Amino acid sequence: MSELKVGLAGLGTVGAAVFRMLERRAAELEARTGRTVKATAVAARDRTRDRGLNLDGVTWYEDPVALAGTGDIDVFVELMGGDGDPAKAAVAAALDRGIPVVTANKALLAKCGLDLARRAEAAGAGLHFEAAVAGGIPIVKTLREALAGNAIERVSGILNGTCNYILTRMAEEKLSFHVCLTEAQRLGYAEADPTFDIDGFDTAHKLAILTSLAFGTQVDADSIYVEGIRQLTLADLDAADDLGYRVKLLGVAVKTDTGIEQRVHPTMVPKHWPIAQVSGVTNAVAVDGDAVALTLVGPGAGGDATASAVVADLFDVARGAQGFAFGLPVDRLQKAERAPMQRHEGGYYIRLAVVNKPGTAATIARRMADEQISLESIVQRRPGGTTSAADTAHVILITYATTEEAVRRAIAAIEADGVVASLPQVIRIEKD
Amino acid sequence: MSELKVGLAGLGTVGAAVFRMLERRAAELEARTGRTVKATAVAARDRTRDRGLNLDGVTWYEDPVALAGTGDIDVFVELMGGDGDPAKAAVAAALDRGIPVVTANKALLAKCGLDLARRAEAAGAGLHFEAAVAGGIPIVKTLREALAGNAIERVSGILNGTCNYILTRMAEEKLSFHVCLTEAQRLGYAEADPTFDIDGFDTAHKLAILTSLAFGTQVDADSIYVEGIRQLTLADLDAADDLGYRVKLLGVAVKTDTGIEQRVHPTMVPKHWPIAQVSGVTNAVAVDGDAVALTLVGPGAGGDATASAVVADLFDVARGAQGFAFGLPVDRLQKAERAPMQRHEGGYYIRLAVVNKPGTAATIARRMADEQISLESIVQRRPGGTTSAADTAHVILITYATTEEAVRRAIAAIEADGVVASLPQVIRIEKD
Repeated sequence: MSELKVGLAGLGTVGAAVFRMLERRAAELEARTGRTVKATAVAARDRTRDRGLNLDGVTWYEDPVALAGTGDIDVFVELMGGDGDPAKAAVAAALDRGIPVVTANKALLAKCGLDLARRAEAAGAGLHFEAAVAGGIPIVKTLREALAGNAIERVSGILNGTCNYILTRMAEEKLSFHVCLTEAQRLGYAEADPTFDIDGFDTAHKLAILTSLAFGTQVDADSIYVEGIRQLTLADLDAADDLGYRVKLLGVAVKTDTGIEQRVHPTMVPKHWPIAQVSGVTNAVAVDGDAVALTLVGPGAGGDATASAVVADLFDVARGAQGFAFGLPVDRLQKAERAPMQRHEGGYYIRLAVVNKPGTAATIARRMADEQISLESIVQRRPGGTTSAADTAHVILITYATTEEAVRRAIAAIEADGVVASLPQVIRIEKD
Repeated sequence: MSELKVGLAGLGTVGAAVFRMLERRAAELEARTGRTVKATAVAARDRTRDRGLNLDGVTWYEDPVALAGTGDIDVFVELMGGDGDPAKAAVAAALDRGIPVVTANKALLAKCGLDLARRAEAAGAGLHFEAAVAGGIPIVKTLREALAGNAIERVSGILNGTCNYILTRMAEEKLSFHVCLTEAQRLGYAEADPTFDIDGFDTAHKLAILTSLAFGTQVDADSIYVEGIRQLTLADLDAADDLGYRVKLLGVAVKTDTGIEQRVHPTMVPKHWPIAQVSGVTNAVAVDGDAVALTLVGPGAGGDATASAVVADLFDVARGAQGFAFGLPVDRLQKAERAPMQRHEGGYYIRLAVVNKPGTAATIARRMADEQISLESIVQRRPGGTTSAADTAHVILITYATTEEAVRRAIAAIEADGVVASLPQVIRIEKD
């Protein structure tokens, strides 16, 4: 019975959860893989901190790069985070000497995934990252292995629990964005500086990885169109509800005639879609293949959920399951043709705060017609609440499929007409 | 570049879809596994039938057992179905000479899974069956690999598309069971003899396999409590809707104090559960682990979806990914302690058609109290429609958590009281 010696860099919430899970599941993992899987070395900053772990007999490293590059280990687990050193140097050091790596570091993969995959391949070592996307949901394994028979057409998901928590509470309890953000921070679902989550960058990192897995392309986070949820108001969520939609921050990668469109933005999805039902911090990923369409729902973050994904990767390492990091050999990964967002086609929700005077709706409708945009509905109404001035109103437009470009031009024309009182709100619609 | 020679037994809808998918994805599979994956031999009944497949250069066998036992193949794919020969003999013949097997045959696995897994292990050959449960949903891989770090507490699912189609149409269009069954037959979703699907046996076969994977037990289909959907009426579905539930035919396996409870029956699930939203022929599986709870939604049947699962297994065979058929070595699979259904605990929906006379509700309530059953609600109402006699009414009870035994005794007592006009309807409730 050979041992799989695990070197663990990072002993925060996730690292500690992995350590405990390996202890708790030791007998099971041994029975299932034929090997004992054990954390034999760890690297973390503060040795004196009590983490409630029994580290007797575990070698302690101050320097994760030293652990990765010289430790007596069979696999290196990187749970430090950050897209630079020491995480990057440590992962590279392990791979370069042929030690497989398991990482939960989406930022690192989004930035350096191609380079790291090349190192892994050159050394014949696996690079595993189930925990980097959608936490406990096995979407990496699903795309890389379970859907190998499918040509993927589209992958999309709720990939950030913080945003979904905020949007769920806004919609269900009729609260403002800021109240919900504060609540999320109080409960530990959002950071003190929430920018990374609520402005969509975290979702974009995860989407970049999914895109590569789904379409066999080189990870390319820079070509993602990103919009966050900061500007959403309760008025928009209420209007969406009235129209039969829910608003979710989606990451979407889709094959189009002009290339692969990668985008992160608030999206109105029909209420009956499985993904519309996903509430709170839960994540979901939907994959449309040419043979199968799947939706996977589960926890996107948290110590146990992330540890579950890390241990699944260790299970694969232990049983010797081989595979390419992004499914294909690095030299087969295509440079992604970037579909420009201006060419995006779909339906749009447009809310305009307008000056309440005769002819306003007609002006708006004409500008839409000028751009060949067909309207599914146009509704003018007084915004709710006691603070709304009598001389302003909301005009809410729902368009049939059109292009981003046409919508942008129509709105610019309406703004030039001087009938709008504040910045227009635009939310893209996905439907069957 | 070595070749993986695939022998395919069964060229019906699924077999033909597998053949075509291997052709269509040949280059991708080669890039991803380093091997060419190609159907080189087939066995089917009628050689003259035009299946639209190019079988040039493919060796034809009349006898699938001969293909499995003597063919020049590296893997045997069994898509004939049936829990006896020739499927069983063919699978055994392949395994016994060390040839890995991919099968979609749930009936065979439910009946002979343990024996076949033992043969696979003895010969060091893989036994793969992703397609046998929930079609295109990768639940076997998820339980066997992705959740290796979890102790599983519960697995449940909508595992039969025919039943879910019928229940969805009944609820949405207010149609009777028989009208919907006829529709399902017309559309090819139900067999001419629908017994196997609508009486729950197909779900039970799949559940038996999931239970073994989830809990490390020996496949034991005989210990499953099975109830189908034949007796459900629109009145029940409407009442469920009023109460905030949907009715689904669920297969459920859950770890209890008295052992593993395996049951298949119509179940009321809260509308907001992801599984409640799953409509039509779609399948869904929910897994509760101690670290992660997942729900997977996708197509449970159909040529392409099933082929997708078969090809995923072939992908694993091609890249040499090893694993035990049911996750653990056969001698580590425990004989399942069977939790008797009488001990089942949960909430119940009970509909009684009663004689409409004073004191009926009081009689019923007293019998419930006699069995220590607490009622969440008791509603007496005239059934809808023009045919209901003035002297009958429905009494609908919702209980708090109680036992199957207590409910059965209370109903027997009420029947003995002579106040019920027809057979009582009992639907178990699952909730948070």
